[in-house]
Amino acid sequence: MSDPLRLAVAGLGTVGASLARIILERSDTTATLGKHSLKLQAVSARDATKDRGVDLAGIAWENDPIALAKRGDIDVFVELIGGSDGPALESVEAALRMGKSVVTANKALLAEHGNRLARLAEENGTEIAFEAAVAGGIPVIKTFREGLTGNQIERVFGILNGTCNYILTRMEDEGKPFEEILKDAQDLGYAEADPTFDIGGHDTAHKLALLTCLAFGTEISADDIYLEGIETVTLEDIRAADELGFRIKLLGVAQRTSTGVEQRVHPTMVPKSSPIARVSGVTNAVAVDTDLLGQSMFIGPGAGGNATASAVFADITDLARGDRVPTLGRNAEALKPYTRAQMRAHEGGYYIRLAVKDEVGMFARIARAMADANISLESIVQEASIGERRGDRQSQPDDVKTIVLITHQTTEAAIRKAVTVVEEDGGMVGAAQVIRIERLD
Amino acid sequence: MSDPLRLAVAGLGTVGASLARIILERSDTTATLGKHSLKLQAVSARDATKDRGVDLAGIAWENDPIALAKRGDIDVFVELIGGSDGPALESVEAALRMGKSVVTANKALLAEHGNRLARLAEENGTEIAFEAAVAGGIPVIKTFREGLTGNQIERVFGILNGTCNYILTRMEDEGKPFEEILKDAQDLGYAEADPTFDIGGHDTAHKLALLTCLAFGTEISADDIYLEGIETVTLEDIRAADELGFRIKLLGVAQRTSTGVEQRVHPTMVPKSSPIARVSGVTNAVAVDTDLLGQSMFIGPGAGGNATASAVFADITDLARGDRVPTLGRNAEALKPYTRAQMRAHEGGYYIRLAVKDEVGMFARIARAMADANISLESIVQEASIGERRGDRQSQPDDVKTIVLITHQTTEAAIRKAVTVVEEDGGMVGAAQVIRIERLD
Repeated sequence: MSDPLRLAVAGLGTVGASLARIILERSDTTATLGKHSLKLQAVSARDATKDRGVDLAGIAWENDPIALAKRGDIDVFVELIGGSDGPALESVEAALRMGKSVVTANKALLAEHGNRLARLAEENGTEIAFEAAVAGGIPVIKTFREGLTGNQIERVFGILNGTCNYILTRMEDEGKPFEEILKDAQDLGYAEADPTFDIGGHDTAHKLALLTCLAFGTEISADDIYLEGIETVTLEDIRAADELGFRIKLLGVAQRTSTGVEQRVHPTMVPKSSPIARVSGVTNAVAVDTDLLGQSMFIGPGAGGNATASAVFADITDLARGDRVPTLGRNAEALKPYTRAQMRAHEGGYYIRLAVKDEVGMFARIARAMADANISLESIVQEASIGERRGDRQSQPDDVKTIVLITHQTTEAAIRKAVTVVEEDGGMVGAAQVIRIERLD
Repeated sequence: MSDPLRLAVAGLGTVGASLARIILERSDTTATLGKHSLKLQAVSARDATKDRGVDLAGIAWENDPIALAKRGDIDVFVELIGGSDGPALESVEAALRMGKSVVTANKALLAEHGNRLARLAEENGTEIAFEAAVAGGIPVIKTFREGLTGNQIERVFGILNGTCNYILTRMEDEGKPFEEILKDAQDLGYAEADPTFDIGGHDTAHKLALLTCLAFGTEISADDIYLEGIETVTLEDIRAADELGFRIKLLGVAQRTSTGVEQRVHPTMVPKSSPIARVSGVTNAVAVDTDLLGQSMFIGPGAGGNATASAVFADITDLARGDRVPTLGRNAEALKPYTRAQMRAHEGGYYIRLAVKDEVGMFARIARAMADANISLESIVQEASIGERRGDRQSQPDDVKTIVLITHQTTEAAIRKAVTVVEEDGGMVGAAQVIRIERLD
């Protein structure tokens, strides 16, 4: 056995403390895994006096993560500070410039600066490992960077944010509206005080951007993602979905198309019979369609101190074995520029919910708008049958009817055109609700 | 970029031909993945004249795989011959003795000779990669050898044989008996002419033995697996399971217990609501419970030329990157001897189906036998309600009743004792059917 691999951990929150514990308590077994044993050499965090349930006596302490990254006696810099800029970015850059390997759980950092950091790593003969950045403890980054190398990937999709899936699952199970479940999730610690980043789909988008890069060999392009959050999903939608054989999930989807790679994050109707529809609560899932393998799916905990630390630790083990994978799966110069597919060209089925005045001919005018846009309808359901069995027609006035349409395969452009016509008709009350249906075989 | 990694492929069946195609056609893209590009240097197969849909002009041919393994101009020997002994074993040994890396899809070879081959590899400074040996193209070996290194694993379970899952799925979907579906599966190529190896659970056992070794850090012990095949599962069981909220799957399960590691392969009742219950047809799934990560599951195609070649190719990419993992996840001397947990000590719920004469007091005697063995019952269902709605009570004579019991958590020893008492009662017609229920949270 050669010299131990000397580790520096910056950030001792839930994940950092859990990681320190694993390194210290499991060094005996992990010494048998590879070339190098592991040594926790130095740490940094804001408060040196806080009790973190792990004995850090004898381990060097730095107040400044950048000083930690620059220490001459460390081989690997583990960044668990968080945030896409500031100390996280500066310390990672410092470590890479010194040729240290970097391990991070920071999706925001990589979504925003990953292309540049990957090149910086390569220039300095080192690399960044980031298993914990997507889907928590599930080894999906390893799967994409190493396990699917021979495949041409057609589509990646997943439930990448536990908070959103938790809220949607509870809305469905308990029949309570978004605001009420969100408030409860905040009280229980499943949602942040400011939930925008999760609820609005931004966190999912960051993770999707990383998966897209690995799956399609393109540069990371987190700004080119079509984005809708779950805040507009109503109980009515969830009930209509249920009656029509669907569940609503916030999916991140990246898909090869003839004009480029489509990246989108939005509430999505998935058939109840599909495996991803069964993924409930805070659980994450990533599925991939490839030419050789067909479809595979990976399900597991997407967050939590121990689950995240498990992924960080696996990255460290790879380094201890001497295993080195290019940061973004390929040498940086081999990454292609990202070409955004136009969302208007997106093809798929759609769910459209319309609140309309109870007028003679309304139905015919809606059907005509769809036909004019060349949209073929799979089903039309009137309010009478939606939620009827539950006897909970909510607060809609008597002279307003709800109509739900499910379309066959069509384009986003056609839908937008038809919906505009319907909205301008004058018979509508409020805006149309449009939710995309994802094709799952 | 250093010199190319020179590959030898022994065996050009479906998987070998697909692999050769991937190596030849995708060398441009794969050159960007790591340190070395790939070169298909030499192949061997039985028939040099057969058209395999891939152009092997300019690639050296050997009739003898052992001669192929010994060539001085190859770096990696890919064994796709099959069989646990004979040319597969001899050529792998020859390659390892020459210090070549070996990649194989051969579960039988490793289940039977893996401990010795892993040591042989280590003595010669090399290693064996075998992603394709378990669950086809799903990267589960990578997950266990590399992705879960910090975790203590409590249980591994999975649907590891596509043929069995295909038959059980069709029995359930079509309501046709085992023999009829098996015959059809044979006609369609989903089952072998001699199906014993799949149906009897032996193939599942080989794969489980490899997962157990990687998960628990113990030597491979394929002979220490409790084994029941699916040939005894009847339509009656499938229907009763359905009414009671279960599906029947052939699972391989390895579980840490106080007396050792339990390894078992048997038809298993899983709750319909569990994700693994939704895995249908030839699809495979592997789930793992660990202390840090909780439960994760990996689902995908378990067989097929392209899917298997995808896994073999990923192993080759790892080698091209210079990544080396000890064959069985740990250095050979670190593997613990396998200690078999006694099956009689197995704890779980049970499904028991009894055909009994329609006599007064029969019910009471069965309940008494269970109570005497300290078995607490969750439910007792009489024939009247089983399959009643379908009006298909099959061929049972009128004076024979079917009784189905579902027990709470108990032990295998208690069940065997109680079933013996019931079978010796004289009121039984035929033997009792006992199917274990797997606890899934």
